[in-house]
Amino acid sequence: MALASIGVCYYPEHWPRDTWAEQAQTMRSGGIELVRIAEFAWSRIEPSPGHFDWEWLDCAIDTLAAQSLQIIMCTPTACPPLWLIERYPEILPVDSNDNVRRFGSRRHYRFASSVYRCESTRISQAVIDRYATHPAIVGWQLDNEYGCHETTLSYAEDDERAFQRWLETRHADIDALNEAWGTVFWSQEYRSFAEVGRPNLTVTEANPAHRLDYWRFASEQVRDFNAEQRQLLRDSEGSDRWVTHNFMGNFVEFDHFDVGEDLDVATWDSYPLGFLDQGWFTDDEKLRYRRIGHPDWAAFHHDLYRAVCRGRFAVMEQQPGPVNWAQSNAQPLDSAPAFWGMEAVAHGAEFVSYFRYQQLPRAQEQMHAALRLPTGEEAPAWSSVSQLAQELGRLPAFGSHQAPIALLFDYPSCWAGTIQPHAPGMDQLESTFHYYCAARALGLDIDIVNTKSNLQGYKMLIIPGTVIVDAAFIARAKTAGVSCLVGARSGSRDEHCALPQELAPGPIQSVIPVRVLAVDSMRPGATRSFNYAGRSFESTRWHESVESDSEPQIRCDDGAGLWYSAGSNHYINAHVPEAFLTMVMQEILAEETIQYEALPEGFRIRRRGPLIFAFNFSPETRHFEAKDAHRILGSSQISQGQYAIWQHAND
Amino acid sequence: MALASIGVCYYPEHWPRDTWAEQAQTMRSGGIELVRIAEFAWSRIEPSPGHFDWEWLDCAIDTLAAQSLQIIMCTPTACPPLWLIERYPEILPVDSNDNVRRFGSRRHYRFASSVYRCESTRISQAVIDRYATHPAIVGWQLDNEYGCHETTLSYAEDDERAFQRWLETRHADIDALNEAWGTVFWSQEYRSFAEVGRPNLTVTEANPAHRLDYWRFASEQVRDFNAEQRQLLRDSEGSDRWVTHNFMGNFVEFDHFDVGEDLDVATWDSYPLGFLDQGWFTDDEKLRYRRIGHPDWAAFHHDLYRAVCRGRFAVMEQQPGPVNWAQSNAQPLDSAPAFWGMEAVAHGAEFVSYFRYQQLPRAQEQMHAALRLPTGEEAPAWSSVSQLAQELGRLPAFGSHQAPIALLFDYPSCWAGTIQPHAPGMDQLESTFHYYCAARALGLDIDIVNTKSNLQGYKMLIIPGTVIVDAAFIARAKTAGVSCLVGARSGSRDEHCALPQELAPGPIQSVIPVRVLAVDSMRPGATRSFNYAGRSFESTRWHESVESDSEPQIRCDDGAGLWYSAGSNHYINAHVPEAFLTMVMQEILAEETIQYEALPEGFRIRRRGPLIFAFNFSPETRHFEAKDAHRILGSSQISQGQYAIWQHAND
Amino acid sequence: MALASIGVCYYPEHWPRDTWAEQAQTMRSGGIELVRIAEFAWSRIEPSPGHFDWEWLDCAIDTLAAQSLQIIMCTPTACPPLWLIERYPEILPVDSNDNVRRFGSRRHYRFASSVYRCESTRISQAVIDRYATHPAIVGWQLDNEYGCHETTLSYAEDDERAFQRWLETRHADIDALNEAWGTVFWSQEYRSFAEVGRPNLTVTEANPAHRLDYWRFASEQVRDFNAEQRQLLRDSEGSDRWVTHNFMGNFVEFDHFDVGEDLDVATWDSYPLGFLDQGWFTDDEKLRYRRIGHPDWAAFHHDLYRAVCRGRFAVMEQQPGPVNWAQSNAQPLDSAPAFWGMEAVAHGAEFVSYFRYQQLPRAQEQMHAALRLPTGEEAPAWSSVSQLAQELGRLPAFGSHQAPIALLFDYPSCWAGTIQPHAPGMDQLESTFHYYCAARALGLDIDIVNTKSNLQGYKMLIIPGTVIVDAAFIARAKTAGVSCLVGARSGSRDEHCALPQELAPGPIQSVIPVRVLAVDSMRPGATRSFNYAGRSFESTRWHESVESDSEPQIRCDDGAGLWYSAGSNHYINAHVPEAFLTMVMQEILAEETIQYEALPEGFRIRRRGPLIFAFNFSPETRHFEAKDAHRILGSSQISQGQYAIWQHAND
Repeated sequence: MALASIGVCYYPEHWPRDTWAEQAQTMRSGGIELVRIAEFAWSRIEPSPGHFDWEWLDCAIDTLAAQSLQIIMCTPTACPPLWLIERYPEILPVDSNDNVRRFGSRRHYRFASSVYRCESTRISQAVIDRYATHPAIVGWQLDNEYGCHETTLSYAEDDERAFQRWLETRHADIDALNEAWGTVFWSQEYRSFAEVGRPNLTVTEANPAHRLDYWRFASEQVRDFNAEQRQLLRDSEGSDRWVTHNFMGNFVEFDHFDVGEDLDVATWDSYPLGFLDQGWFTDDEKLRYRRIGHPDWAAFHHDLYRAVCRGRFAVMEQQPGPVNWAQSNAQPLDSAPAFWGMEAVAHGAEFVSYFRYQQLPRAQEQMHAALRLPTGEEAPAWSSVSQLAQELGRLPAFGSHQAPIALLFDYPSCWAGTIQPHAPGMDQLESTFHYYCAARALGLDIDIVNTKSNLQGYKMLIIPGTVIVDAAFIARAKTAGVSCLVGARSGSRDEHCALPQELAPGPIQSVIPVRVLAVDSMRPGATRSFNYAGRSFESTRWHESVESDSEPQIRCDDGAGLWYSAGSNHYINAHVPEAFLTMVMQEILAEETIQYEALPEGFRIRRRGPLIFAFNFSPETRHFEAKDAHRILGSSQISQGQYAIWQHAND
Repeated sequence: MALASIGVCYYPEHWPRDTWAEQAQTMRSGGIELVRIAEFAWSRIEPSPGHFDWEWLDCAIDTLAAQSLQIIMCTPTACPPLWLIERYPEILPVDSNDNVRRFGSRRHYRFASSVYRCESTRISQAVIDRYATHPAIVGWQLDNEYGCHETTLSYAEDDERAFQRWLETRHADIDALNEAWGTVFWSQEYRSFAEVGRPNLTVTEANPAHRLDYWRFASEQVRDFNAEQRQLLRDSEGSDRWVTHNFMGNFVEFDHFDVGEDLDVATWDSYPLGFLDQGWFTDDEKLRYRRIGHPDWAAFHHDLYRAVCRGRFAVMEQQPGPVNWAQSNAQPLDSAPAFWGMEAVAHGAEFVSYFRYQQLPRAQEQMHAALRLPTGEEAPAWSSVSQLAQELGRLPAFGSHQAPIALLFDYPSCWAGTIQPHAPGMDQLESTFHYYCAARALGLDIDIVNTKSNLQGYKMLIIPGTVIVDAAFIARAKTAGVSCLVGARSGSRDEHCALPQELAPGPIQSVIPVRVLAVDSMRPGATRSFNYAGRSFESTRWHESVESDSEPQIRCDDGAGLWYSAGSNHYINAHVPEAFLTMVMQEILAEETIQYEALPEGFRIRRRGPLIFAFNFSPETRHFEAKDAHRILGSSQISQGQYAIWQHAND
Repeated sequence: MALASIGVCYYPEHWPRDTWAEQAQTMRSGGIELVRIAEFAWSRIEPSPGHFDWEWLDCAIDTLAAQSLQIIMCTPTACPPLWLIERYPEILPVDSNDNVRRFGSRRHYRFASSVYRCESTRISQAVIDRYATHPAIVGWQLDNEYGCHETTLSYAEDDERAFQRWLETRHADIDALNEAWGTVFWSQEYRSFAEVGRPNLTVTEANPAHRLDYWRFASEQVRDFNAEQRQLLRDSEGSDRWVTHNFMGNFVEFDHFDVGEDLDVATWDSYPLGFLDQGWFTDDEKLRYRRIGHPDWAAFHHDLYRAVCRGRFAVMEQQPGPVNWAQSNAQPLDSAPAFWGMEAVAHGAEFVSYFRYQQLPRAQEQMHAALRLPTGEEAPAWSSVSQLAQELGRLPAFGSHQAPIALLFDYPSCWAGTIQPHAPGMDQLESTFHYYCAARALGLDIDIVNTKSNLQGYKMLIIPGTVIVDAAFIARAKTAGVSCLVGARSGSRDEHCALPQELAPGPIQSVIPVRVLAVDSMRPGATRSFNYAGRSFESTRWHESVESDSEPQIRCDDGAGLWYSAGSNHYINAHVPEAFLTMVMQEILAEETIQYEALPEGFRIRRRGPLIFAFNFSPETRHFEAKDAHRILGSSQISQGQYAIWQHAND
């Protein structure tokens, strides 16, 4: 059994039936073992209400199976057909301007629509009834990219009614809601749940607790939708197949940990270049990594989604060439498809599935590259992927290990941070990523954890400015005896988006007795200078005035304190450069005797079992040799877009 | 009696009743004398239709009074409770996209709503009936921040009908309207007032006279709303108490002079840092003054609101720490709260009331700092404000004097300028502020005037590009014999937003015989260079071709004329740097034998009676000694955020 | 007969009747021969339903005719009066957010409105009945600036129904539509035409073929509207008068070639400064040409509109001074009005009509300069235009000749490029203009062609990245034996906005056998360096990976190929600098023995018959002498905003 397998996303309905056999054969010849199908095929499966056409899909599955290809079968709920929308227009989502969002693309449904819940159950049950026990089917994907195109939050009147019912469950009574939200402010008091509206189109910003509850409600609709769908498979005869959903990059609009509880494997759709262009990176980074992606972006998501399903993850859609949906759509380096695939494997991916087999020359994604050209010929990515398949065949299988470092990530904190940003550039995802990069520059493997995670076995816990931190989590960290490195803004809100009674960092005060008295939200260009270990740095964006019994480790040039410590726990009360964070971590690691290796810029390593993988994202060729290990793939001179693998001597 | 007193904004309804006594005691101990209450308390005063709960408010007032605190009582109309909106949804305002703006924050009412006029009269009458003669109440505030969140202009169908009735009053008949608006242009002619629509969502820009009339109509709704509310107090037994409304910074959406006619004292809400970050200042200024504010911003508003109520003004809400509503929310210098308060006093403020007593840890403004932390402890601002209270106690009381310089400000001109901007950066508020800064850099005290003001006693009148200037005002300036300094774009429109028959500068031609034949609206980067008194300058943004019998004072390098004079009157036909304006003023002042003192950048002085106040906003420490005066507070070495006070030798 | 005549746009209804005679006399005295009237006069012609007032217009026409002025009569359909909108509100257009766009400015009608088609026919017929045979009327203008203010595309429910009927005509049946659009993608399949919606407010982007068809539909509504109106004149007794419509600059929202088929002369509205400020030019260009316009902008449009009516064009509205509608509205150089007029004549304009005679001091365009001030006095432009009239009187008349170079322009390609941009800065108009400038820098005269044009007689055909290129056109190019210079992205879509079966450049492969395998869409700052003829260049924005049997002419520093040739045909597979394009053209011209003359920056020449015109846009004075010709106007030292004319020795 190989370390991981190669898959592909495939749409037989896009191609003439007489080409299917050759397509399947070609896949097989290229080392592809897994094929995902049917996730947008509702209108072909049920062309008119209640009339099913299974024949084509039976044939497509059999054609693939005839080549020993394993199938990931999808439920088709991401794209309800037009006849369903005509019958039940209340399915359509409503945007924040109260406009109904029309049929004509995809994801045109509200998660809270009870009629859509029925219809999606009906169609998925039909597909499951047909294929649950098909021997070629090894797993299922539910729907596609929940929440894409801002579809988590919808503002229909029906959504409002569902929200009111949800509030009744969440809050003991309306007085409790009034108290939790602080509705006495601005005379916003409610007399019954039926009075609470949706929080869009208010004269100025709505109450933050109102908005946070609306977001929780919306997130739970996604969770419930997924859970209902998953239950259908649990109840089916094919319940031994694994079930997944394909999450997205840079996307935090619902709680993925919640959804992950009902999945066996988390998968995600990895588009390193599209997100480099759209993301928060600097212009320099966008140019430097234009054709290979940022060194930590895909890795961060691999680690995040590995956490979402308790250790099991894969890549369902891997970028093979230029995408169509960013503002600029760069052509990857020739070696990028294999590079990205091997990187996913290094982080524990069970498979890497490329999107898609063949470029469709029509419709919205016609400029999205694939493994095969629209003509059926090899696309530029084909040979790179085939090479990866061969390499993976030569590597032995190993599971993933626990990393020494845990990094907290929390979805409700993302929403709270968006609802009350207070300063530019303090987005939760970006802040978390900032700490992640600093640790990865030291060659550390990282496990992402959530507030419910077990922390035993970790040496360092990073709380990277997580807005909402619950007390039980901190108690668990204390029990586990892990060193805490806590970033500014951590614990600055309670579950109702209110300031904690004890002031920020709230429950974290039990491990580091500091209190935040004021926040200096610093506009672009505003800085505080400081020196550390002979180097000059500046804090930017956010600097907290902290009350503490002990002196800070550093005084900025203007006298402001920075970096408060209590035993092996540390509070960094400002937004500071990645290089400084790395130095802080080195101190902690030295104390905790955790091994690390400071890596050159753009160069990254990852361990999986006895294997050590090295990846060079930087334009500069890097020399690297793993210690106590022998190289089993690649060279010790690693140029941009290349990788090498070592095996530990003693394994 | 002290020069001015310290106040605080306080919300007893936010806090447990058992903390009120201690809160009141603490206020008193910090030197606070005034407490504003109840302006958002409607849902607590009338929790359900017609059922009033006065008990808590009686108790709160008595608790404050027991500490000899004086109370500013508010009408609660800025926040109608939800039950009222449920009964009369027509109260809700409509935005320029025709979307109804929902309940869920504040100011969710239309000024033109007749049902809201009735309801606001009803609730205010109830509050007045209860408290009009309470001995602790010294004054009243009506509503809160009229127009905030773009609520002056509303586009409901009911607004349209009210607008039609308003037009009937304004225009003799529909022919007069057609003539005044020029509706023959683009076949826009109306046959009756009932045909005239609201000016939003038109295919391209609506007729400027239509828009200006709609804006006047909207402004008059605010005036009428305020006048109705004020009349309730005039008719009450407590009619000897003063009445105010708290205006805002950088806000010109209704005519404040109109509203001011029905007030005894104008107050305003001074947030120097929030507006520095949001305003039109350069990035350099935003960094340089990040923690203390622009040297002229608060001063300008003090002078403006002093004019709005014929000499009487105060600060109702003074920023005490970081606010929550700007993009970046800087932490003020420790000394800023007292500095801003003393600056207000120097400009004639009768009191300075800090917003707010205690930071509420919930709801929209939870990140808005206060004098006390959410826990009740001292916030960083507390000691600064206490120090100010002590200092004020040591200063004798003096009224304000007439300044030598008058500066014209006109609200309809702001609207006309917004409706037809013609060039970037020529906003009326910004243009006025530009001239204000140039004069303040010479240490001059300034009175702001409106087109109805008496001009007797002034030495120089600045018309800083005021778009609409009426002939009677210019006639009064001639009679007063004041030197006029007139900026480009002055008098460029008549009251119907049309070009004046005699061309710009319209009636100003009677004091300076120039005519504007063309305007060069100059994109960023476009300049005309010129030299004056050995220094090089550039005009930018706006440069008029002027017809004049006399030669301009200056020829730009490309031959364009600049600065036309007629006797002691001057027309500056371009947007020119502040430093050049200052030099022009120096020439005029010298001729008029007005004393001035060129001040270093960021350093400002202000006189009040025999006192001379000096304030240093600049990061550089400044040395200053007032002539013929002895220092009674502070040092002659004044660092950033510090002030000093002198008393004239002969007083 | 003169080479061309001077006209003016005039609105007698704006002025007191007792001024008309003097206005007409003044026009005549300034050399004006043509007067356009009545295009916004519906409310004056038909003040209430069915009641016509011709008296004023009769009088105005007679007053003009009395001065021997020739009249261009307009239909008044661009501004339906309010009473018509009140009767038939369904006339109003709907924006892409589904908001009805209100009465209150102009162009408040939907082209697809059947009731508006009836009403516009009715009013135009009435005007035609009245004036068709009036001897002073020499031509007609239909409506005004079709599509201005984004009125081509409307999203009313009625538009949707009309679109469905249109689709029935375009597609054989619904299966054909599903196939052409690729609706199998994302389960978007339709079962009947009645199911197809308008493509706005979809959850994410609508299908590109859907959008392209909607755009074609909308464009054809404009064509049909124009054709119906034109037919009224064809059927009238004055059918010998020419008929035109005035098109706009930088405007491609409907197919002007389609509309042009029903016109005798194309006219356009030339505002070189307003469009310089709003256009895609660099900041440097916007400053350098701030007061005279970009050297190729007006010329490009002259050549474009000359093509639209098969050789006949004129300027209906020529900018005379600052406009009111750009963000910055620069004042032109004093000589600009004549300069622009003569430039139009050099490109073949039959007349140049200035907008407008007298500045109206009221309504939306009150800050739009004219030939006369609001007071009636001379405006700055007057003397320049009078001078031009005199100069034109001295030049003999000549027709236009065929240019050596043909440049393809295609409207549907513009729409396809907008629907799927794929990279910033690859707008079709901008790409076409880029090639145009490169050729004009070699002093070449250019004819713009469309996909139906006859290509006989041309030496070089430029296909400047035209997205949709039909096979018949390429076949005609082959037959004509013209050298093809083809830019990147050419032929990259078929008529349904799908990738061509043979891959890009589609049918162009028959003259240059290359295939585009991938596109590198390059973000700002991303470049590929290369050297050519000793100079360094960079490709930016777009670089295609091309499969070809032959080696590229150039290898970039990173190995990427550039410039593929097959015989005398050339494919430039990247966005490259204008200077490099010019060098490529020089090579082709040398091979084809086409004469050219490399011109200094900002200096341009144009031939018309035996005349050679030279124009200097650059701030630097240029020396120029035409070969084998004698100068008949101007000097050989030509400063900015000046021109000179030579006549060929042998003519």
